[in-house]
Amino acid sequence: MMNALNRFPRKLRYAMVGGGLDAFIGSVHRHAMALDHHYELVAGALSSTREKSIASGRELGLADDRNHGSWQELLDDELKRPAHERIDLVVIVTPNHIHFEVAQAFADAGIHVVCDKPLVHTSEQAQQLVDTVARRGVVFGVTYNYTGYPMVRQAREMVRAGVIGPVRKVVMEYHQGWLATLLEAGKHKQADWRTDPARTGIAGAIGDIGSHAENLVATVTGLEIESLCADLTTFVPGRRVDDDGNLLLRFKGGARGVMAISQIEAGNENDIRLRVFGERGMLDWQQEDPNRLIHAPLDGPRMTLTRGSTWLSEAALKACRMPTGHPEAFIEAFANVYIGVAADIHARVATGKPATLEDAEYPRVEDGARGVRFIEKTVASSKSELKWTPF
Amino acid sequence: MMNALNRFPRKLRYAMVGGGLDAFIGSVHRHAMALDHHYELVAGALSSTREKSIASGRELGLADDRNHGSWQELLDDELKRPAHERIDLVVIVTPNHIHFEVAQAFADAGIHVVCDKPLVHTSEQAQQLVDTVARRGVVFGVTYNYTGYPMVRQAREMVRAGVIGPVRKVVMEYHQGWLATLLEAGKHKQADWRTDPARTGIAGAIGDIGSHAENLVATVTGLEIESLCADLTTFVPGRRVDDDGNLLLRFKGGARGVMAISQIEAGNENDIRLRVFGERGMLDWQQEDPNRLIHAPLDGPRMTLTRGSTWLSEAALKACRMPTGHPEAFIEAFANVYIGVAADIHARVATGKPATLEDAEYPRVEDGARGVRFIEKTVASSKSELKWTPF
Amino acid sequence: MMNALNRFPRKLRYAMVGGGLDAFIGSVHRHAMALDHHYELVAGALSSTREKSIASGRELGLADDRNHGSWQELLDDELKRPAHERIDLVVIVTPNHIHFEVAQAFADAGIHVVCDKPLVHTSEQAQQLVDTVARRGVVFGVTYNYTGYPMVRQAREMVRAGVIGPVRKVVMEYHQGWLATLLEAGKHKQADWRTDPARTGIAGAIGDIGSHAENLVATVTGLEIESLCADLTTFVPGRRVDDDGNLLLRFKGGARGVMAISQIEAGNENDIRLRVFGERGMLDWQQEDPNRLIHAPLDGPRMTLTRGSTWLSEAALKACRMPTGHPEAFIEAFANVYIGVAADIHARVATGKPATLEDAEYPRVEDGARGVRFIEKTVASSKSELKWTPF
Amino acid sequence: MMNALNRFPRKLRYAMVGGGLDAFIGSVHRHAMALDHHYELVAGALSSTREKSIASGRELGLADDRNHGSWQELLDDELKRPAHERIDLVVIVTPNHIHFEVAQAFADAGIHVVCDKPLVHTSEQAQQLVDTVARRGVVFGVTYNYTGYPMVRQAREMVRAGVIGPVRKVVMEYHQGWLATLLEAGKHKQADWRTDPARTGIAGAIGDIGSHAENLVATVTGLEIESLCADLTTFVPGRRVDDDGNLLLRFKGGARGVMAISQIEAGNENDIRLRVFGERGMLDWQQEDPNRLIHAPLDGPRMTLTRGSTWLSEAALKACRMPTGHPEAFIEAFANVYIGVAADIHARVATGKPATLEDAEYPRVEDGARGVRFIEKTVASSKSELKWTPF
Repeated sequence: MMNALNRFPRKLRYAMVGGGLDAFIGSVHRHAMALDHHYELVAGALSSTREKSIASGRELGLADDRNHGSWQELLDDELKRPAHERIDLVVIVTPNHIHFEVAQAFADAGIHVVCDKPLVHTSEQAQQLVDTVARRGVVFGVTYNYTGYPMVRQAREMVRAGVIGPVRKVVMEYHQGWLATLLEAGKHKQADWRTDPARTGIAGAIGDIGSHAENLVATVTGLEIESLCADLTTFVPGRRVDDDGNLLLRFKGGARGVMAISQIEAGNENDIRLRVFGERGMLDWQQEDPNRLIHAPLDGPRMTLTRGSTWLSEAALKACRMPTGHPEAFIEAFANVYIGVAADIHARVATGKPATLEDAEYPRVEDGARGVRFIEKTVASSKSELKWTPF
Repeated sequence: MMNALNRFPRKLRYAMVGGGLDAFIGSVHRHAMALDHHYELVAGALSSTREKSIASGRELGLADDRNHGSWQELLDDELKRPAHERIDLVVIVTPNHIHFEVAQAFADAGIHVVCDKPLVHTSEQAQQLVDTVARRGVVFGVTYNYTGYPMVRQAREMVRAGVIGPVRKVVMEYHQGWLATLLEAGKHKQADWRTDPARTGIAGAIGDIGSHAENLVATVTGLEIESLCADLTTFVPGRRVDDDGNLLLRFKGGARGVMAISQIEAGNENDIRLRVFGERGMLDWQQEDPNRLIHAPLDGPRMTLTRGSTWLSEAALKACRMPTGHPEAFIEAFANVYIGVAADIHARVATGKPATLEDAEYPRVEDGARGVRFIEKTVASSKSELKWTPF
Repeated sequence: MMNALNRFPRKLRYAMVGGGLDAFIGSVHRHAMALDHHYELVAGALSSTREKSIASGRELGLADDRNHGSWQELLDDELKRPAHERIDLVVIVTPNHIHFEVAQAFADAGIHVVCDKPLVHTSEQAQQLVDTVARRGVVFGVTYNYTGYPMVRQAREMVRAGVIGPVRKVVMEYHQGWLATLLEAGKHKQADWRTDPARTGIAGAIGDIGSHAENLVATVTGLEIESLCADLTTFVPGRRVDDDGNLLLRFKGGARGVMAISQIEAGNENDIRLRVFGERGMLDWQQEDPNRLIHAPLDGPRMTLTRGSTWLSEAALKACRMPTGHPEAFIEAFANVYIGVAADIHARVATGKPATLEDAEYPRVEDGARGVRFIEKTVASSKSELKWTPF
Repeated sequence: MMNALNRFPRKLRYAMVGGGLDAFIGSVHRHAMALDHHYELVAGALSSTREKSIASGRELGLADDRNHGSWQELLDDELKRPAHERIDLVVIVTPNHIHFEVAQAFADAGIHVVCDKPLVHTSEQAQQLVDTVARRGVVFGVTYNYTGYPMVRQAREMVRAGVIGPVRKVVMEYHQGWLATLLEAGKHKQADWRTDPARTGIAGAIGDIGSHAENLVATVTGLEIESLCADLTTFVPGRRVDDDGNLLLRFKGGARGVMAISQIEAGNENDIRLRVFGERGMLDWQQEDPNRLIHAPLDGPRMTLTRGSTWLSEAALKACRMPTGHPEAFIEAFANVYIGVAADIHARVATGKPATLEDAEYPRVEDGARGVRFIEKTVASSKSELKWTPF
């Protein structure tokens, strides 16, 4: 049954940190959170300066007393409020270098967190967050949003069910072209911070989109990387981080992989493709055509599975709002991650215990931590003269 | 600029008539209305019986005093409320046979209306609504939702701008397969009323989806049908309305068209395709791949225009939330119709005058009326021995 | 097994009438006939004037004594030659108005014939040919070449085997754009004769490509047209024949169809598509992607059948030369028609009897005659004020 | 103008070594050589045993005195024949281990050679052939047949013309699945020798199809590999050579590449794809859809260039036989390589000098030698613990 479990007792109250009116991803989060009626925005510290924060909050209709100039003020204020007013969760959509301190502070205060990816700058920071989350028992979601697509979940279920047999090979691609020129030389906000090592971290493309790629592979195949071999490049003169990377992957158990990541491929938009080859068949999914999943068995014609079809797995159908032929897309996938987060928060309220993984599907702090490790190991490998860098 | 004009001073309050929890389209409307933060559901008469209405309203979180057992009670109650509480609009998502009386009553009471398609059962009813809307000066939207797709608007703008030259030929297709068997014999709610002439009207497929097809042709090409020649068929034994129809079209000015409509094409989902051929090129759009529009000029390679690209028309870009490669789909298109409705309502509040057609894009009561006429003429033509039935 | 039956005792000798060096289709026939080593060109009357004929024959390496200035001289000469030298067949690739007299003369002389489509100008001529072929017992192939595609044959076999159940609906399209302007005003040889009623016949697009469409429908579905309703148009000012036509079709037994034919759709190349919908599924084939056939069952994901796959029908596999993934295309399909012709000729030599239909698949004179009838009925319908013209 | 230069004074006489009736590739060569009327088969030593050779020759209609039991007898016999009877070229389509001695002997005897790929087992052998070819002045073609596709040539011309700017990145894929199981354990002739190191050489997939991939990259981009990093795997238990390989590539001048090669990807057929990204755009070609080439510029919609279009480069148009929309495919591409060989042979006869590279396009012995080097370096890299192996 489509979307059957997604009726919750009330809307969750959230605050947003970052995501002011000239930001991109904050707006995406707000659209996604609004879609299913599960969340309402009640507070915020929406930008990097007090002035811009307040102006953004007004535009979004925040009450004056919940429209803050800094995330610290937001947190202080929330902690003073009675439980029935206080936010259930904070959503962190700042540039990467802010993630850690905000996430750490809110989680430590016992407030649930959703944080954008990549999680933080270093594995040490990531481990601290993992520890804090465990200690405080909060929900912590990381918006690897592509895992919210129904047909990605269908692929995962098919791999788990052995439909294509043991996995031998993974071909993972993430092709963008928007950084084919030195956009950051102009006033392009998105390009600016994403190519500044102080804000984006040690990696460019490999951090911004490579981390999505790593997460998709892990989510769908369940494979663990054993070692990797990376070749990162900065193609655009003047750029301070990598804008392209290709990797060879070896997984525990003998599977192999290849990964091609780029943000300088002029002409590409957001072309993510994952192909998984097992002993008895293959799966092929593309983000720009997300309602379809190709399944080719070893012997027989290839099949096109479509979102919403009755013969999909329960996990995929639960992630659908619309019948077949009525396409869903990026925002809906994003919203599915937020359904998982809501399910976990409501379960904890209702039962005092976390929801099961089946009942609350969303990428967690551990996924975020592994993504940080992936970035570190990829950068290390790219500098190494040895072929294989252990993961 | 994407979505630039869509910031409104407040959320509009709406009531819903029909759309209880086991309905399909009501939920779609609610998702779409929530997406952009422009609407809030405050009242309803959500189902055909008092009991189901009340239960549905509770599930959706309606306050008890605004959760009604009938649309008449809803209307009475609203008219007693002060302006700052009263609904701005009613959304009518019942089966077709209820549309007329509800729409007429609310419009006549000066309340804005959004009504599902096909608008009403007869052209006489449609004309009454047109008159009432004009007399009372209310906004009246008809949810021909496919016109909300950015690339449909792009196609319309390109035709208007003469990019493909004067239009010669239109090939319009709408292929579904879900009624390939006698679903209505079981307890299939959607199939049940759509195949019951008392509720759906004189036409089956031609009313349910043919009216979308007519509207897409009119919207994109601006052409007016001069005469048509239809062959309607009921393929499934036991069915009481047509489930398939093919038409030849002649437009004023000499253009020609062909239209293929079906709900019994086993294996098809919701495959809508519009091709427009002009003297200097063609346009090709498919609903199941909605982020792309093919433009083939007379001399030169065919081009794939993608949603969000900077070189699109302003009208198309205004309908985008996300950058290229981050697909949008059905709900977003639906929400775009609602943005147009909201823009018109807010404009009237702010200025006392309707918004311009450019500032408030949505299908209006006149579109709905023309759609009813299309259904009537198609049914008449199908019964005629003469080739051409004037429109 | 691929192509298993196609080993013949010797190459067949053929003469060509028409097809000089500046012609298009003659060259296609020669490529196709050469491909599989089953034919050798030994004689010809290759053009409309003695001078051009002789020049063309020299270029193609014909011996001087078999390079003729007219088809009459060719025929006279051949009849004087001993059997081991004489041509086995004549290939007629002239403009349409020459077909009849040449085909009639050679068939009457007991020489096998392959003739291009449309067969002749009138049903009376067609019937004469049918009678002559029967009387003289010659092989007579009509190059409805699209039936030679392996996946067209696969579709036909699947319909025959009942895989999609009884056929309800057929959507047949043939879209070209090359005549979107008045090409015949220049020195465009192909456009010139195809738009001259004296040479092409009473119909333009409907004769040139509509006849292919009719043949594909008949071949794949086996359905017989009961009545049709046509709307033919001449869009390009100054043109003397139709360049666009749309049809509604009623088949014996209750199936329905729609057909869209055009040569003025700027931007289209040679886009032929046939969709057949049965009670239990559908088939979808497109000529510009000919190695694939979509099969969507009533319940289950759609499948992409690929040419060369082991699970295809024997009839399809026999038409393949190459393994899957090594695409075959137009010339190969054309050559498959010629394999059928060769198989029939060799069978008659070897056994004195025609080959079975399974062993010699090619469109026959009766197919050509039905195609002529289709053209006549379509033109008549287009002029009629009544909806249905009996076939 | 299509195919304009391809009229030659006479058919070339060829002998075939290998390619008996149960072989695959020999038949492909014969179809391709027959297609354009430029070649005739007059002699052969068609199989590995005398008995099978003679039987195959009879089936193919060879005269008894030119149907030999061994290639040595064939060569001896040809050298005794007068020039007007003697073969112009030999076509070598044996398993790989036979290539060297046959090619060396015929080239050394002054007979033109076409040899299948990969050329030979070692770079030493390759160098010997290069030297012999230079010394004897013979034509030596290597059937990297995919370079014969018109749209591959179009891509090459566009790169050369700077349409996409300097090349930054190459993504080269060659995906097959036919060796996903241990086919060689049965009586599968193609699998048998291709997985036997004594016959196929030191590499499996990387030799059989990786060499095509290398050649396509070199042909289209003109880039030279500087160093490579390979990970070869044998997935199928019991197999004696690699059946999968992934590579990182560094090219002279700074471009980067990634290559994914596999024969165990169950569900794939012969899926070759080459994407080239330059500073100002990209090109994308796929072998299973060979009539199209995608060109996406840095700023503007992506375009689909189609084979046969008038706006293609002269080099591409020369490789076309058919107008747009009438697809050509594998055999036609193969035949285009043979047109190049024929052009070079005829030029040498006519002028005593080789044809220009423009007038005679085909992969030469040097391409074959570089392919052998690629195989050796890839195998060496795969065994190395260092990341980069110089090329």
